[in-house]
Amino acid sequence: MSGLGQSFAVAGARWSAIAAGIKKKTANADSRLDLALLELCEGTRVAAVFTQNAFRAAPVDLASQRLSILREAQFQNKTYCLVNAGNANAGTGAAGYAAAEQSTLAIAESLKVSPETILPFSTGVIGEPLPVNCFSSNAAELSAELVADGWEKASRAIMTTDTVPKLRSKTLETSAGTVTLCGIAKGAGMIKPNMATMLAYIVCDAAISYKDLEMLLTSAVNKSFNRITVDGDTSTNDACILAATGAGDACIDSGSDSWLALLDGVESLMRDLAQDIIRDAEGGTKFLEIRVEQGRDTEECLQVGYTIAESPLVKTALFASDANWGRILAAIGRAGLQDLDVNHVTIALDDYVICMEGGRVPNYEEEMASAIMAKSEIVLRVSLGRGEAQERLWTSDLSHDYVSINADYRT
Amino acid sequence: MSGLGQSFAVAGARWSAIAAGIKKKTANADSRLDLALLELCEGTRVAAVFTQNAFRAAPVDLASQRLSILREAQFQNKTYCLVNAGNANAGTGAAGYAAAEQSTLAIAESLKVSPETILPFSTGVIGEPLPVNCFSSNAAELSAELVADGWEKASRAIMTTDTVPKLRSKTLETSAGTVTLCGIAKGAGMIKPNMATMLAYIVCDAAISYKDLEMLLTSAVNKSFNRITVDGDTSTNDACILAATGAGDACIDSGSDSWLALLDGVESLMRDLAQDIIRDAEGGTKFLEIRVEQGRDTEECLQVGYTIAESPLVKTALFASDANWGRILAAIGRAGLQDLDVNHVTIALDDYVICMEGGRVPNYEEEMASAIMAKSEIVLRVSLGRGEAQERLWTSDLSHDYVSINADYRT
Repeated sequence: MSGLGQSFAVAGARWSAIAAGIKKKTANADSRLDLALLELCEGTRVAAVFTQNAFRAAPVDLASQRLSILREAQFQNKTYCLVNAGNANAGTGAAGYAAAEQSTLAIAESLKVSPETILPFSTGVIGEPLPVNCFSSNAAELSAELVADGWEKASRAIMTTDTVPKLRSKTLETSAGTVTLCGIAKGAGMIKPNMATMLAYIVCDAAISYKDLEMLLTSAVNKSFNRITVDGDTSTNDACILAATGAGDACIDSGSDSWLALLDGVESLMRDLAQDIIRDAEGGTKFLEIRVEQGRDTEECLQVGYTIAESPLVKTALFASDANWGRILAAIGRAGLQDLDVNHVTIALDDYVICMEGGRVPNYEEEMASAIMAKSEIVLRVSLGRGEAQERLWTSDLSHDYVSINADYRT
Repeated sequence: MSGLGQSFAVAGARWSAIAAGIKKKTANADSRLDLALLELCEGTRVAAVFTQNAFRAAPVDLASQRLSILREAQFQNKTYCLVNAGNANAGTGAAGYAAAEQSTLAIAESLKVSPETILPFSTGVIGEPLPVNCFSSNAAELSAELVADGWEKASRAIMTTDTVPKLRSKTLETSAGTVTLCGIAKGAGMIKPNMATMLAYIVCDAAISYKDLEMLLTSAVNKSFNRITVDGDTSTNDACILAATGAGDACIDSGSDSWLALLDGVESLMRDLAQDIIRDAEGGTKFLEIRVEQGRDTEECLQVGYTIAESPLVKTALFASDANWGRILAAIGRAGLQDLDVNHVTIALDDYVICMEGGRVPNYEEEMASAIMAKSEIVLRVSLGRGEAQERLWTSDLSHDYVSINADYRT
């Protein structure tokens, strides 16, 4: 978590977070926080992207359907996001869908609103029935505790294998007025967002049209949450929400002077949260930025970037601080690029070029490369030497702890 | 290694294997064996498939070029395969190609043959210069020690991180006469052969036309070496050789009655070797066969199979004997199949169905699933419910030892 000491509040948004008994009991009461509710004021426009996994979870289906209806009705009423950790309600079939509906029904009754205004989100173990009674028996408490400064508590309530909460805020001074942004995210494993992310909720207080908000979300997600991978495993429950309450000073549209400042601000905040996820990657001891440059197009830059990022051999070398660039080279070579001329490929660690013209540079010094690999944050630069496209993405290493965490997760 | 007590010899083929100082010195003299030579008698037809990695190693390029020339000349002379372990001669640029040529030159002088008849193969660390002097200073010894029963020693000389040699033989009684087959292979990590394999040398004593031999190789490889993965990392040095010496009784062509028996025999021997590689996978404690059934075509069956096989979350659950089928389901869901109806997907461990209609079966018993996951050899069956295609592939788990082996490989 960054931003300690910052204030976390956005006009028009309130959170509550409680321990509802969905997560397994532990000695630490704090780690039992597992149910959070976000309230967005009347007129707040809400955009979302969801996982592309074919087995998308029941709450993802329900939230997506309800969002379409709310958009048709132009968000006249308050909108709610109901988020639980400890159970993903995925791989649960028709019963899972009914459980997702029931979970929102209990909260709706307590809030005295229509259940259609409540978007459900779940994260945790796949394939276990959602304990709906945890929602109904705690609905009153959850509804009563909505507060403007509830962001930090909510960021802890949505954690699963995360070791730290992910919480960011930002204030933008634009020609249209001040814009305040707050965002939280969760995720540490099963991380390879695909046109979406793990759970993330970002709210700003500007007034933005729905069309512009969707464009803003897509653009920012594609430079942040859609550029990270821990293990290549796209979750069944990924969702990223971007809401604009309109309760602040600024009214911004995509044709105005302020648009680029807003786009930069949202993208920067999402990138910070995405990188927070990688820094908290399951078992992760290293943070690797991969820059793929001089590619023919975005797609091939990403192909190369993800093939490196997800290679178990590259990831274990990273864990060992071993400048085993042969594994990087082998990963580039199997990324499936047509007609790649390996003699034009350059590989550098930070600013130290280690490989060009198909082999190691003549004056290569293992000590230089090893010193860079020993750092906790490393930039790997790969130049394909055949175009102008470039992409950045972020990943972590593969450690003993990754194996331990994922071998023991359900036990 | 299976087949202990069997005799390993094929008429027309001889091997020698020595310790040439290419591998690092260890206390165990046996593990220093690192250079092997296969001699194939005049007229032996040799077919090969090589890695599709763009950074394919210098010896792969050279062997491939020389094989084309030998084929043009109809294999009039003896053909040799020169195989070293301990250094892959990959990522070594133009100097690596020259070193591969030089390594064969030294052996050719000693054998008094043309260097063009020697196909070089290397396996080991990527990116280090090949120590050519180890070849020249040991050429005489290597040439002098060719023996018909050298298969077992050769199988040890080509090992790198392998813990056991992979050695198989088979005798086929066909209507055209008896066919004897022997094969060796190496590989434990950086295993995802792509239209090829790690190093494998299979020789039979039948006379087979070059065209038929190539067809035989392609068909058998696609049901064996091309159906395994340890870590998804296709090597720069993969090669599989199938040779027919014609020194035995049988002469077989693809139109004859004996063809299917030969095809079955070669495929079976290659599948045994491929499975030997998976059973010796780096850090592996489990052997998983994945059967994907009722797919629309081969491609989508393989997409689903490999996505499951290479998911770090599935592999760690396998290591933990945890029947965490939610991870299998999530992997199927992200495999990229168009219009997959998850309600038609069925998942079974051995014969126990655990998931259908998008969720867990109603009478699911965790004890049943856990008991199967605790076995060392498991069959995972996934039915996609939308076609007639089916594929089988084999993989291993992801353990602490995998991380240790690959974090320490160069140190």
